[in-house]
Amino acid sequence: MSFSKGLHNRALKVDDYLKSYLNNHKNEFEEKLHEAMTYSLLSGGKRIRPILLMEVGSLFGASEEELKDYACAIEMIHTYSLIHDDLPAMDDDDLRRGNPTNHIVYGEAMAILAGDGLLNYAFELMSEKAIDFGMNHVKAMHEISKASGHQGMIGGQVADILSEDAHGDASVLRYIQEKKTSALLTCALTAGGYIASCSEEIISDLRTLGLKVGLAFQIKDDILDIESDEDTLGKPIGSDEKNSKLTYPSLYGLEAAKLKVESLTSEAHQIIDGFNGDVTFLKSLVDYLCHRDK
Amino acid sequence: MSFSKGLHNRALKVDDYLKSYLNNHKNEFEEKLHEAMTYSLLSGGKRIRPILLMEVGSLFGASEEELKDYACAIEMIHTYSLIHDDLPAMDDDDLRRGNPTNHIVYGEAMAILAGDGLLNYAFELMSEKAIDFGMNHVKAMHEISKASGHQGMIGGQVADILSEDAHGDASVLRYIQEKKTSALLTCALTAGGYIASCSEEIISDLRTLGLKVGLAFQIKDDILDIESDEDTLGKPIGSDEKNSKLTYPSLYGLEAAKLKVESLTSEAHQIIDGFNGDVTFLKSLVDYLCHRDK
Repeated sequence: MSFSKGLHNRALKVDDYLKSYLNNHKNEFEEKLHEAMTYSLLSGGKRIRPILLMEVGSLFGASEEELKDYACAIEMIHTYSLIHDDLPAMDDDDLRRGNPTNHIVYGEAMAILAGDGLLNYAFELMSEKAIDFGMNHVKAMHEISKASGHQGMIGGQVADILSEDAHGDASVLRYIQEKKTSALLTCALTAGGYIASCSEEIISDLRTLGLKVGLAFQIKDDILDIESDEDTLGKPIGSDEKNSKLTYPSLYGLEAAKLKVESLTSEAHQIIDGFNGDVTFLKSLVDYLCHRDK
Repeated sequence: MSFSKGLHNRALKVDDYLKSYLNNHKNEFEEKLHEAMTYSLLSGGKRIRPILLMEVGSLFGASEEELKDYACAIEMIHTYSLIHDDLPAMDDDDLRRGNPTNHIVYGEAMAILAGDGLLNYAFELMSEKAIDFGMNHVKAMHEISKASGHQGMIGGQVADILSEDAHGDASVLRYIQEKKTSALLTCALTAGGYIASCSEEIISDLRTLGLKVGLAFQIKDDILDIESDEDTLGKPIGSDEKNSKLTYPSLYGLEAAKLKVESLTSEAHQIIDGFNGDVTFLKSLVDYLCHRDK
């Protein structure tokens, strides 16, 4: 099977999982909340984080049943962060993946609560499954909570906001990129590893891998914001420059950014080559993440 | 020791626990985020939920060490919900406990992230401690996640917002009160019970107790919004009427509301009388919650 077919099938499978949640409304209020939550959850994301978690978890021997809810929980956390990021008080974006953002459709109050609801539901789902599956899952949940929290993704968002219009330096940029993007990608790998009972040595390799892929992914994102177009990307381009965002290209230039993506991709491949088992899809996925056009 | 002295000492102890978190900043961004998170966390709450969790947990034999982080996690969840509730897009409140609300001090973007940060940190803390203490804690965490989530507190907030200016009925009022207030109070009791390895029969009694105390607490809140004054309450009174909120007094009248508080208090006492051990403080606490003047 070609890589793109394999990727597509995996994304469809994640979509099916995601559709299976939040169907049980007790009244019109829950129905409305669930509608706002699923609107963003099912609005065509690439499902990179859940696919990464499931790929690594199954590479090291975990079953789909053990992995799927944690894969979806990470996607819920990713989605809530986008809903809150898009709010008028934050990035004030009207479009996301080619569709109106959550607050444009449901209003600000509901968008805030839909985001809160998705973050909370991720942990409701993970703690429920941890009761069934045991301590490996609790470790995976803790890993995810650190990555999404005050010293992870949320810390990165704060740094991103506070460094706007300021002349940030390389260490600030590194912090933002590690926290805002790499953290959640990395925990997809390490959580998959924990669920599959990996050794601390493998977990450490997965952490390094996540950091490299996450950095390459973010720099590629910044490059696309300069070189792509709105139709391909599904959102306005040039927003980083408009908001005076500190990015790798803004600090080091476009060519250096492209070279950095190449070297990070190559380092990521080396780490993956150290793993036993069929790593073909995982290597192609890393290539795709670093060389995608949207 | 008098009840009020006992309550004061317990609240001070919770404050000390709460001060022990979020001190480890790696840079100015984390420091700013932690400042916004702790501003609301330490702004003089009554600490009812953590005190309830610790009281019930220790009544049934759990140690302070096993209980304290979960007690604080519930207070973090309660605090995040207040920060988001106060936002301009939600209730648009400038004052909370006599102090400027989070977004007034730190701006809307930071208030959204500080709320997200507290919700996430609650689960980071609980999952970390569950690794140390085991499956009873995972059950307690799941109990808390359900109470704070889409079919708990967040569901109640959505119903509260959507029913404004509409002529809601008794079933809508019941849903809002059970979800918006009772859910989090109830899970303080049941989480304490799970941590103390209580039987499902006791957990069920704790759930019923929480529902009765939660309803009485919310109705008392609604009564205070009519009968108290801004100096005593630390926030403007009459806001329910201003916002056309559906409340027990608005639906059944003030006198019926007062009678309902009395009957719920009495039913709560009967449940507590069925527990072994020294329940003196717990009974007084229920009285206090239902008869407080702020």
